[in-house]
Amino acid sequence: MEQKLTVALPGRAYDIEIERGLLDRAGARCRALLPRAKRLFVLSDTNVAPLYGGRVVGSLEAAGFAVRLRVLPAGEGSKSAGNLASLWEEMMAFGMTRTDAVVALGGGVIGDLGGFAAATLLRGVDYIQIPTTLLAQVDSSVGGKVAIDLAAGKNLAGAFWQPRGVLIDPNCLETLPDRDFASGMAEVIKYGCIRDRALFYLLDHCGDRAGVMAFIERIILTCCKLKCEVVLEDERDTGARMTLNFGHTVGHAFELSGGYMRWTHGEAVAAGMVLAARLGIALGVTPAGVDGQIEGILRKFQLPTAIACPWETVEEAVGIDKKRAEDAITLILLSRLGRALPHRMEKEALFAALRPLMEGGAA
Amino acid sequence: MEQKLTVALPGRAYDIEIERGLLDRAGARCRALLPRAKRLFVLSDTNVAPLYGGRVVGSLEAAGFAVRLRVLPAGEGSKSAGNLASLWEEMMAFGMTRTDAVVALGGGVIGDLGGFAAATLLRGVDYIQIPTTLLAQVDSSVGGKVAIDLAAGKNLAGAFWQPRGVLIDPNCLETLPDRDFASGMAEVIKYGCIRDRALFYLLDHCGDRAGVMAFIERIILTCCKLKCEVVLEDERDTGARMTLNFGHTVGHAFELSGGYMRWTHGEAVAAGMVLAARLGIALGVTPAGVDGQIEGILRKFQLPTAIACPWETVEEAVGIDKKRAEDAITLILLSRLGRALPHRMEKEALFAALRPLMEGGAA
Repeated sequence: MEQKLTVALPGRAYDIEIERGLLDRAGARCRALLPRAKRLFVLSDTNVAPLYGGRVVGSLEAAGFAVRLRVLPAGEGSKSAGNLASLWEEMMAFGMTRTDAVVALGGGVIGDLGGFAAATLLRGVDYIQIPTTLLAQVDSSVGGKVAIDLAAGKNLAGAFWQPRGVLIDPNCLETLPDRDFASGMAEVIKYGCIRDRALFYLLDHCGDRAGVMAFIERIILTCCKLKCEVVLEDERDTGARMTLNFGHTVGHAFELSGGYMRWTHGEAVAAGMVLAARLGIALGVTPAGVDGQIEGILRKFQLPTAIACPWETVEEAVGIDKKRAEDAITLILLSRLGRALPHRMEKEALFAALRPLMEGGAA
Repeated sequence: MEQKLTVALPGRAYDIEIERGLLDRAGARCRALLPRAKRLFVLSDTNVAPLYGGRVVGSLEAAGFAVRLRVLPAGEGSKSAGNLASLWEEMMAFGMTRTDAVVALGGGVIGDLGGFAAATLLRGVDYIQIPTTLLAQVDSSVGGKVAIDLAAGKNLAGAFWQPRGVLIDPNCLETLPDRDFASGMAEVIKYGCIRDRALFYLLDHCGDRAGVMAFIERIILTCCKLKCEVVLEDERDTGARMTLNFGHTVGHAFELSGGYMRWTHGEAVAAGMVLAARLGIALGVTPAGVDGQIEGILRKFQLPTAIACPWETVEEAVGIDKKRAEDAITLILLSRLGRALPHRMEKEALFAALRPLMEGGAA
């Protein structure tokens, strides 16, 4: 069943279309979304291009576009300043003008890098997102955040840039490895935790990957809708939008402790949510038992509920977190399952409350 | 006499302050403009830093800021993707957060590069412009265009990003070499040509550099005001804003023909304006005699009225001009002195009209 969500941002609206088999109709959709475009620069990676690159390029060419497919190595390492500079040059060499567009076919890395290149080429050209992972489908489709990584950390150089359209084909998830599916589920579960108890209970009822796939259009749509509400409440990453960081602050430390290799973003967020729930309970903000509910659902989806991490890494990760302004930090805590709130505290007080929880809770 | 212009863009307003000696009050002004900032990353170049770096850094430090001064080699070559990436890393290493800011102390290259770094670091931090050349003072203070150059051409990767404030000290112009002063005058004269006959006649009356300096605050203010009107009429580089490109399309060819070394941007624009006036006359859009009026004033300010350029370079320059969309091109012509209009024509028709003018008009 086709699902559509209009993201009506001030000054610029676009649609997220969710439909099985949509990849094969990418050409017709891009033609409708980009009536003046002649050239499409398709960015993908070595995981996705062999599976879907041919079908998408074929569909785009059949719709009359000149297409250049650029395939980068899969993985976070591709989100670099060096690749960004190469893409700029390749896009100009391809002859792109302001009415042409970038198509990002892949997960979050491809969407972030391709989106940042689109945001800055000729001071901004259109881009179309075709997210192929669950994480990218529920998380990158709304919000307009595009970025690359620096030596100092992830997503430290970037922009806010809205896509012209987002095409989501849930059939792409069939080829997603179990671990990547689970990682995407961590973000889906996060939306339940911070804003939608009904979603949380639906996921709990689904119980596993096959169960989720039976409701996948609706689940993706719900997540996009929830994120859209949050972003519309707050377009510039303060207040409401910060609630999306639930589980992320210490999650970053977990990712860093594994050198961004051992744990996926979703796994780190999963363990980060449990820790944030426990921290909320310790601070008297979160009702007792919420940590157990989150642990229970994470286990159903093979996600870690705790990750061992050296204390120094926590201090380092929180120290360079770009959401910080000076020495206080805003953590996201749950006032109950389904409702999150920003909780500002001094870094020292956070460390004092967090340290005992971490020393007791390693996996 | 202090002059102030408020640039009231939708959603974000800032002031351009014009005052002799303002450099020494940079600290107090930045403190007022950036109440939450602790760290200022000052970008400058090897021409400007030895003259004004110490005074500006001293003033900023006296106002309580932690300051890092970064000096790049003077010249267009510094506006590179490699330098942008280095600046991102250095800014993070300096400990910058979202409430800190970049200060661009220099000409257009420093403003464009520093502004683009500010636009993208942490998805956007504040920046303060302290333009030290006449060109930067009249041209870069309004419009929010920031960019770097690519191998394929100038300003091909960038963003629209408004400064928090612009501090203009006309005393900086005292140390500007004659040739750079003249180059800035080309843009000043351009504002007279496209939008303000009274300015044109004032400049003609001033007659030379010393004459201009007697009215400099007022001249800078007028140019900023004119650009502000244009940009407010059209915030996204179509329609009205295109009139700012008067003299620039073929001017780009002149710059390219000299490998961006032989002719300054202003010199290329000067000769480009004469050619655009002649083209307008040939097409029946511009009244006869306007070319002579422009030539006359350019000579007073030691600017070239014609530049020899291989025809292939014109085709190449127009071909990669990022303002083009497809095979028609929009040229800016004068309907009379003081009034410009966009004139859209097929590239072939442009070439047919332009070629005879160029073959006859080399310096």
